[in-house]
Amino acid sequence: MHIGFIGLGRMGFPMARNLLDAGYSLSVYNRTQSKAAPLLDAGARLASSPLDAITPGQLVVTMISDDAALAEVASDEWLQHLGNSGIHLSMSTVSASIARQLATRHENHGSVYLAAPVFGPPAAAAARKLWICLSGDAAAKERVRPVLEAMSQGIYDFGTEAGAAHIAKLAGNFILQSALEAISEGVTLTEKNGMDSSAFVSMLTQTIFNCPVYQNYGGKIAGRRFNEVTFSFATAAKDNRLIRQAAEEAGIALPLADLANQRFRAGLARGRAEMDMTAIALGAAEDAGL
Amino acid sequence: MHIGFIGLGRMGFPMARNLLDAGYSLSVYNRTQSKAAPLLDAGARLASSPLDAITPGQLVVTMISDDAALAEVASDEWLQHLGNSGIHLSMSTVSASIARQLATRHENHGSVYLAAPVFGPPAAAAARKLWICLSGDAAAKERVRPVLEAMSQGIYDFGTEAGAAHIAKLAGNFILQSALEAISEGVTLTEKNGMDSSAFVSMLTQTIFNCPVYQNYGGKIAGRRFNEVTFSFATAAKDNRLIRQAAEEAGIALPLADLANQRFRAGLARGRAEMDMTAIALGAAEDAGL
Repeated sequence: MHIGFIGLGRMGFPMARNLLDAGYSLSVYNRTQSKAAPLLDAGARLASSPLDAITPGQLVVTMISDDAALAEVASDEWLQHLGNSGIHLSMSTVSASIARQLATRHENHGSVYLAAPVFGPPAAAAARKLWICLSGDAAAKERVRPVLEAMSQGIYDFGTEAGAAHIAKLAGNFILQSALEAISEGVTLTEKNGMDSSAFVSMLTQTIFNCPVYQNYGGKIAGRRFNEVTFSFATAAKDNRLIRQAAEEAGIALPLADLANQRFRAGLARGRAEMDMTAIALGAAEDAGL
Repeated sequence: MHIGFIGLGRMGFPMARNLLDAGYSLSVYNRTQSKAAPLLDAGARLASSPLDAITPGQLVVTMISDDAALAEVASDEWLQHLGNSGIHLSMSTVSASIARQLATRHENHGSVYLAAPVFGPPAAAAARKLWICLSGDAAAKERVRPVLEAMSQGIYDFGTEAGAAHIAKLAGNFILQSALEAISEGVTLTEKNGMDSSAFVSMLTQTIFNCPVYQNYGGKIAGRRFNEVTFSFATAAKDNRLIRQAAEEAGIALPLADLANQRFRAGLARGRAEMDMTAIALGAAEDAGL
């Protein structure tokens, strides 16, 4: 199986490298071509365009920033070139609605859209420790399973509907962002009581919240290490927009997403786009005069 | 060391039993006396009143429902009887402000108030697997350490200020309640997209949220098992009140506590006091027409 890989950012680069290490033949494309250099040294072929990354009837992976960039890549020409029995494995965090539109467009060209967004920071991508949410055509899922296994430690199947895996990913990010806001407010309460918030977070993450999300991000919030970027503030704000869009499309209210939106807007307005997403904590801290 | 133990509810009963099993001599008191019977069989002495539970200069543990019940127990006569070098180990979830008031009143009688609220459900209490947040006088903390160890798997010291351990406990419960609301809203989004929310929660709690709080309560929310009571809705609503009181006293806003309050009020108004606290999820579900 020849694989086209489009998008060599903080996540895409280590994922593509793992596919090369697993022995796959890769054509790689990135808007900033220089980023591809170490992969070319490792045997990848440089594609000159998203279209050039495709081998008809084979697999193309997209790991690109947002809906707009994905829509730009997935032109009619691109879909036609992928053609019959081709698979588009869409691994970035995009909306369920673009996934559903693309699934229909792929179907019209005889190809398949598979939703496969991932959980895990860049370090997890490098270590083949991602978790993958998967949905789409059953036969196509079976065909790409070895490819997914070369990048991940776990695959969770959400059935055949193209949007489902993206909803699972967005709902997960939503619960994560809500946890960050909750930690932030809780930390503020302890600090206003003259306490050492690091001791508080350390206690929580050794007891009822002994999982990596709370340990990693909670420690950053208590230690105010907002410039250690695991996941950028701007990207988290983008995810929050996708979450609110999903709520709108589902016709429901998500009060916690609206609260997070207030924090993200304020943070972006104050120039925090390039900080870590835990800088959401500055909202509660500043509102408390800390 | 003779120990008085006041409050033999779902938490206090197994905690008192562990102290007996560890070889301590106990006088036990509970408003409903019949609950003490199994402890008397195991060698405890029945106290006829909170005052009668006290041995002067020794240790008395309170594990009672709320500030009002604690204030009623801790009369001037009771404090005077505990007297010089007596220790009051206050283990239930009460406000930092009553703790601070009691600390001063104890000091006036030559005794010490130690804050020692716990994390963990009744099953953890039975298994000596509680986590204890501790604050107060250093020498008194040293004196009670073996007693705490007979009930817990971990002790977290928050210094000498009487309110600190209670703030840590309340802030922890606040973050927990916020997590329940976040899971509830996330589950609602998946259900409105026609997905199996149990599969969604199962994925999350095997990946980024692989800790007991999310596993136990998340599973209940997705499975709508709101009548399996681990922690009652009414008690969670009481804790939410204490959290908002702490925010008021600290002079800060906790938007997530206000949102949880809306859910608790609505749930209580709809007669859910005796359900599990995860019934907070019915708020988001009902708002979504589910």
